[in-house]
Amino acid sequence: MTTTRDRLLDAAAELFYRDGVSIGVETLCRTAGVSKRTMYQLFASKDEVLAASLERRAPEYERRLSAGPDDSLTPRARILHVFERLEAASTEPGYQGCPYLAVLVELKDPDHPASKVARATKDRLTEGFRALAEQGGARDPLFLARQLTLVFDGASARAGARVETLDGLATATAAALLDTAGVA
Amino acid sequence: MTTTRDRLLDAAAELFYRDGVSIGVETLCRTAGVSKRTMYQLFASKDEVLAASLERRAPEYERRLSAGPDDSLTPRARILHVFERLEAASTEPGYQGCPYLAVLVELKDPDHPASKVARATKDRLTEGFRALAEQGGARDPLFLARQLTLVFDGASARAGARVETLDGLATATAAALLDTAGVA
Repeated sequence: MTTTRDRLLDAAAELFYRDGVSIGVETLCRTAGVSKRTMYQLFASKDEVLAASLERRAPEYERRLSAGPDDSLTPRARILHVFERLEAASTEPGYQGCPYLAVLVELKDPDHPASKVARATKDRLTEGFRALAEQGGARDPLFLARQLTLVFDGASARAGARVETLDGLATATAAALLDTAGVA
Repeated sequence: MTTTRDRLLDAAAELFYRDGVSIGVETLCRTAGVSKRTMYQLFASKDEVLAASLERRAPEYERRLSAGPDDSLTPRARILHVFERLEAASTEPGYQGCPYLAVLVELKDPDHPASKVARATKDRLTEGFRALAEQGGARDPLFLARQLTLVFDGASARAGARVETLDGLATATAAALLDTAGVA
């Protein structure tokens, strides 16, 4: 059953992603079909709504990028899969880049509650890369993971802003870095 | 001599960079010490002020990243220099990432006049990389240049959001891509 809280958070996630974090409470509540009174009964502020909406979407975001439990894939293939999924997502209508990076860029405030959720989500991406890099025998797994997240964020931001069409670019870049790090 | 137009554009560049593109006309004019009447005599809209402020800063932005006319540097060294300058800039107080990428992420509208200025500025970065990659004998100069801009934008966004401390990371990543492309 979808609760009022869920409906508010889903509407918030879509609206903030499409139009940015500066969208006001009026627009948010109107779009979600929730009164301001109800919103403020559920959350202390718009900032808290934004943070909770990002947190609610994180498992789905991560599931979409990951290769899942297929044991036949090598660590290298699992890493490249993330970039293939990113490239596929970037061609969908309405794609605006990684929502977590966008929130960090827009808020310009590492102490904002939503920045903390965004940072934790991005850190899990890097940690996933690091664990796979280690399994794949990378010389310096954390360094490779940080490189891969740079490429991921650059690719998602540029494709989301419509200044780049990835079409293999992010995946080839990740593959070059895997080669350099000795992950065959 | 600094004109009223220049004063407005310098204040706009700093304010939009620090606080984002959603800053209002009131705040902008107050910070610049310019009346709204004067602003609207000079520019049709806030959007035009934003676009002109980005355009005004572009030559200085490009000068800071480039190695200048020192003929002793190889194409590879010139490319790496851009990443070294990015890394140095990212440690300065108030660093919020590349202003042109930030505007693209925040506006979410490729047709906005400021998005067009931002895109043109980023395209010149890629074109600079491409020309150097060609001089350096890269197998596919444009592909390498697009990879380098991915890394540049990922690095500047992550460092600007305070979720990464570059400290050699962007430069090492660029060097690995140069190696892969055969630019010695």
